[in-house]
Amino acid sequence: MTQKPTLAVVGATGAVGRVMLQILSQHADVWGEIRLLASPHSAGAKLAVRGEESEVHALSEEALEGVDVALFDVPDQVAAQWAPVAVAKGAVVVDNSAAFRQEADVPLVVPEVNPHCVRVRPRSIVATPNCTTLSMIVALGALHAEFGLTELVVSSYQAASGAGQRGIDTLRAQLSLLAAEPDAGTTPGGVRRAVGDDLGPFPAPLALNVVPWVGEPQDGGWSSEELKIREESRKILGLPDLRVTATCVRVPVISTHSASVHARFQSEVTVERAEEILATAPGVVLFDDPAAGDFPTPADVVGTDPTWVGRVRRSMDDPQALELFVCGDNLRKGSALNTVQIAELVASEFAPS
Amino acid sequence: MTQKPTLAVVGATGAVGRVMLQILSQHADVWGEIRLLASPHSAGAKLAVRGEESEVHALSEEALEGVDVALFDVPDQVAAQWAPVAVAKGAVVVDNSAAFRQEADVPLVVPEVNPHCVRVRPRSIVATPNCTTLSMIVALGALHAEFGLTELVVSSYQAASGAGQRGIDTLRAQLSLLAAEPDAGTTPGGVRRAVGDDLGPFPAPLALNVVPWVGEPQDGGWSSEELKIREESRKILGLPDLRVTATCVRVPVISTHSASVHARFQSEVTVERAEEILATAPGVVLFDDPAAGDFPTPADVVGTDPTWVGRVRRSMDDPQALELFVCGDNLRKGSALNTVQIAELVASEFAPS
Repeated sequence: MTQKPTLAVVGATGAVGRVMLQILSQHADVWGEIRLLASPHSAGAKLAVRGEESEVHALSEEALEGVDVALFDVPDQVAAQWAPVAVAKGAVVVDNSAAFRQEADVPLVVPEVNPHCVRVRPRSIVATPNCTTLSMIVALGALHAEFGLTELVVSSYQAASGAGQRGIDTLRAQLSLLAAEPDAGTTPGGVRRAVGDDLGPFPAPLALNVVPWVGEPQDGGWSSEELKIREESRKILGLPDLRVTATCVRVPVISTHSASVHARFQSEVTVERAEEILATAPGVVLFDDPAAGDFPTPADVVGTDPTWVGRVRRSMDDPQALELFVCGDNLRKGSALNTVQIAELVASEFAPS
Repeated sequence: MTQKPTLAVVGATGAVGRVMLQILSQHADVWGEIRLLASPHSAGAKLAVRGEESEVHALSEEALEGVDVALFDVPDQVAAQWAPVAVAKGAVVVDNSAAFRQEADVPLVVPEVNPHCVRVRPRSIVATPNCTTLSMIVALGALHAEFGLTELVVSSYQAASGAGQRGIDTLRAQLSLLAAEPDAGTTPGGVRRAVGDDLGPFPAPLALNVVPWVGEPQDGGWSSEELKIREESRKILGLPDLRVTATCVRVPVISTHSASVHARFQSEVTVERAEEILATAPGVVLFDDPAAGDFPTPADVVGTDPTWVGRVRRSMDDPQALELFVCGDNLRKGSALNTVQIAELVASEFAPS
């Protein structure tokens, strides 16, 4: 096949979908037609891609005709329903939902870590990980290749945009309401009174607060987000027995997830060697000189592609453990970029040989 | 001695000092005179304590005459200089700075954990821990008493007020500037441009951001705040070999520190028994039913005295490890309340027997 493949972006009008269109406009153009699909109520909207306005169409069987690769960023149940339809029409689906990630016959791919897995896709579906897993796994994959990872203890600092455009809008609205209440942050109950009853997608006020709950309740007191980090890290790294403990916390940041990571390895580690690995790992920026003010923060990382790593330390009591602080833009590498990267790996199969 | 002891509050005009005056006004009144002292440029100010306006005097040798107990909340170097002066005048000093915490002949006291240590004070100085250590140690002390603590991995979510009134003012000013910049949180460099060059006491913008650096650089890439958590936890719990790893992160919350804690014990633990212990431990509130929205957040904890604990889970791979999320008001139990509690233990020695 020498024709450029046709791409569909399903969920084009969402927070992640819009970033997908930006990235598709910036990357080397490997696509023929790019078709924008979304729910019926978004049909008719116009969005820019590759420098031109393009109309959004309602997702339907007809709209998927002739699609070679389909990027899905839609709720889990929509992906579960429509990905098989796209596959039946002949497409390879790259899905950013949780619907297929833990299926044995669906690869879960991070191109810097396990790109080979994209070729083995019995169901013609490739899954992309949760944005919190993605924000740290590129750096951990590089360290694992040298030292052999045995255990992770992760505490996250997750941005509002992980809950989509509604998350962003909710945080901004709460900050506006609080601007008129200078004492809210020091008065018992003051933040709740100031922001009112509409908490948007969050289970507590997010402005001037941190919320130690992301996702749905699971057995043992865990949240679904915490179990995703565990299961997805194991699957991507090919380590089914990796010890993983995560605590997921939402913070009042618009976009870019961070994580404090305690990583234990099979062998002794040194900060020097870890920094050599991170400095040359694809998709990673090492930014680690606190005395000079160099450590990653969401405000500096937002809008960039790599995983930023700083605060690299060896545990004072355990020569096999490293501490890291990582930041990654959850809308770019954490979602849209990883999905586009996988699609580009698939597209390379369409190239003339 | 049957007369009520004279108390001095040194640093009365600071963020912590003002909370000390609130707490002294609310607690059972065990004090005779309460004398308010501060730096010369605050002299002449009037502050309310026990329902009356009281004038602030400049700290001097004369101002310390006749003082029985002196609460110090001042910078380390001021405490190092003036605490011995107060002792020479006959006072017992309860110091909230880091100047004496690691001295072998100065007890480091949390009344719920090691109250007996207040009686052994060869230098007439008792130290109170760093606010981040305090925000978690009451809960950990209770669990240690039953299970035997062996290891802590802590990631903090520290509020602006840990950097004093200037920290609070800086965060509020940054939030005001950002209110006029709706795209700042999603644009590369947008937050830095919006908040300008004056970052106050923080090494990076704090509004719409998290900053993985608190304190001064130390060997091995650690911050002074991280080493304080390690050294102070060991000293308070009487466990000089406790394995402790901390990552300290500032978050855009006005007041109340949080911490995600991975705690490993000598024996197997169960969530049920851990929750029984926490539910009855003095100074602890167990608030742990995520399905009902019950987990501690700074917005709900600010202004309260206890350490709040939620998200209690047993590690899925390690039956000897618990995960906890704790919140404590760093200006109350984290600083002012613990200092006043220690002073009240000392004052009880003055009571008629």
